[in-house]
Amino acid sequence: MYKIVSIPGDGIGPEVVAGALAVMNRLAEKHGFTIAIEEHPFGGASYDLHGEMLTEATLEACRNCDAVLLGAVGGPKWESLPHEHKPEAALLKIRRELGLFANLRPAKVYDALIDASSLKADVVGGTDFVVFRELTGGIYFGQPRGYDENKGWNTMVYERYEVERIARIAFEAAQKRGGRVTSIDKANVLEVSQLWRNVVHEVHRDFPEIELSDMYVDNAAMQIVRNPKQFDVIVTGNLFGDILSDIAGMITGSLGMLPSASIGKSHALYEPIHGSAPDIAGQNKANPIATIASVAMMFEHSFCMPDIANEIYQAIETTLAEGLRTADIANAGQSAVSTTEMTAAIVKNL
Amino acid sequence: MYKIVSIPGDGIGPEVVAGALAVMNRLAEKHGFTIAIEEHPFGGASYDLHGEMLTEATLEACRNCDAVLLGAVGGPKWESLPHEHKPEAALLKIRRELGLFANLRPAKVYDALIDASSLKADVVGGTDFVVFRELTGGIYFGQPRGYDENKGWNTMVYERYEVERIARIAFEAAQKRGGRVTSIDKANVLEVSQLWRNVVHEVHRDFPEIELSDMYVDNAAMQIVRNPKQFDVIVTGNLFGDILSDIAGMITGSLGMLPSASIGKSHALYEPIHGSAPDIAGQNKANPIATIASVAMMFEHSFCMPDIANEIYQAIETTLAEGLRTADIANAGQSAVSTTEMTAAIVKNL
Ligand SMILES: CC(C)[C@H](C(=O)O)[C@@H](O)C(=O)O
Ligand SMILES: CC(C)[C@H](C(=O)O)[C@@H](O)C(=O)O
Repeated sequence: MYKIVSIPGDGIGPEVVAGALAVMNRLAEKHGFTIAIEEHPFGGASYDLHGEMLTEATLEACRNCDAVLLGAVGGPKWESLPHEHKPEAALLKIRRELGLFANLRPAKVYDALIDASSLKADVVGGTDFVVFRELTGGIYFGQPRGYDENKGWNTMVYERYEVERIARIAFEAAQKRGGRVTSIDKANVLEVSQLWRNVVHEVHRDFPEIELSDMYVDNAAMQIVRNPKQFDVIVTGNLFGDILSDIAGMITGSLGMLPSASIGKSHALYEPIHGSAPDIAGQNKANPIATIASVAMMFEHSFCMPDIANEIYQAIETTLAEGLRTADIANAGQSAVSTTEMTAAIVKNL
Repeated sequence: MYKIVSIPGDGIGPEVVAGALAVMNRLAEKHGFTIAIEEHPFGGASYDLHGEMLTEATLEACRNCDAVLLGAVGGPKWESLPHEHKPEAALLKIRRELGLFANLRPAKVYDALIDASSLKADVVGGTDFVVFRELTGGIYFGQPRGYDENKGWNTMVYERYEVERIARIAFEAAQKRGGRVTSIDKANVLEVSQLWRNVVHEVHRDFPEIELSDMYVDNAAMQIVRNPKQFDVIVTGNLFGDILSDIAGMITGSLGMLPSASIGKSHALYEPIHGSAPDIAGQNKANPIATIASVAMMFEHSFCMPDIANEIYQAIETTLAEGLRTADIANAGQSAVSTTEMTAAIVKNL
């Protein structure tokens, strides 16, 4: 029996989360386990109800469940709020409060969608790597920080234990994958990167069978575009990971299809990497695949059921192979299916 | 009469600089002006001679000339030196000492080389934008900084005047180009970016005819890959500019062909964006085009002779259209010309 907190959030969030829950329910039925789903408000939806993007009640529910499933947050309605009330601030707070120190973003190309990439098919085809982005440290949270009329300042800081724990899980992931880790930093300029690099190499001693290489962030950004197939596991800090994982998602041509997992010592949160897409919200047009794939990550990482994760990925591939496309991935002239039709097809293929 | 300091540097530096000087001499002859060239050591070449990557004599010469032309620095021989003696440290020092606060990196696709891009021809064709990267501030120079056994820290800081001056020249450039500026920051997380954004918008009041938009750095990295044609002038801080200008260079497919200018109030330095390529150094194989195009930027920015800059670009295009290719840009099976052959062809086409 798994206890899941569902946070539909804003925009298309509720629609794509509904799709993901349908998939979960089908799997529970098929495999005979029980899933208890508790829904909580977050983001704009929470602000409108409670005057806060993230209430103590939602946070407490997240602390007391096996996994959190998040749709999307934010929208034009809440963009002019003061900084500390914005959805971004709530996102950072939930990451920090739940200790979600590792953000996993697979960059995998769906063969059926290869032509959607801005990269040439032969460059991008077969790409399959994962970015481990440190998520609760670095310049996102470093003190001192602030700005006044004439100056702005932030602090990029890492402590040894923060680097150790993210490096460790990146090496562990490489053991189950291609056995290669690329650690990305800017050690030729930044002292914080020198600490990062030293600690990653120390942790590497416990994983002698894994091949470790270092790459500067500027070069890494180029290399992902030049030859994405060269990577297996990438591990990097919060800010560099923010930038690189977005490039990684983009080159696959499936940006609207990619899931993510944010993992800590005792909590985990799963969400699509796309945003709340307010322009198509409520129209039954959104692509639920990224959120459904996030459920696959949940089965793999939180429930240790990689077989069920594979069943989900399989069902997605089959559905794409059948030719079904939501509007965002339809070719010119191809008729698009709705969110609920795509969901139903994937559920049927499970 | 122009006084130029030539810094061949390491690896292929001397070969490509020789090509650029040949072009300069041809132009001087053709248009009847005089160029005085003084050569100075820098980087590994200087370290081997004087035990320092950047001597006071070289720095003084750079302070007393109209423009500096740099080849490339660094190589495996000097990679294990302590951090403060590395070529990178010398690069940062020369930028800082000469006050080169703006790094200009054009991202322009050569039609003849469009197939060399990892992006699809229709995505990348016609791309023509320029990145204005702030070069003497931000996290590259911010204090406090340091690391010990358990912690590493750097400071990303901008002062109003630093943002003002780079914003101003970016807007001025947009006046002569497409009239659009995209300012890139991470204002949804970083206070230093909030200052950046505020100041850019204040400077914008002096350029009401220019269209200004803001973009987050993670999104910008994706957008350059998704649709590079959307940009005209990009302005951003030192670290973001380091990453984004490398992506911008890569997508053009002409990474080895792109020039750069680093400009200050009273000094300027021009260099190819590629490195010292120690593997092919001394073999007369290197592509001199990036350094020759850097001379074009010198004529445009330091000598206010855009017509001569265009002559150079024209000669490069003509030479490429004639089918000449150095090894780095030759297609499979195509025979490659040498550095000196490529140089001679461009000189002939001037
Ligand atoms: C919205 C923003 C604060 C966030 C981040 O920078 O972490 C987003 O870009 C992400 O990657 O999840
Ligand atoms: C070598 C390094 C210090 C330098 C930088 O980060 O500025 C380089 O990447 C560049 O872009 O010129």
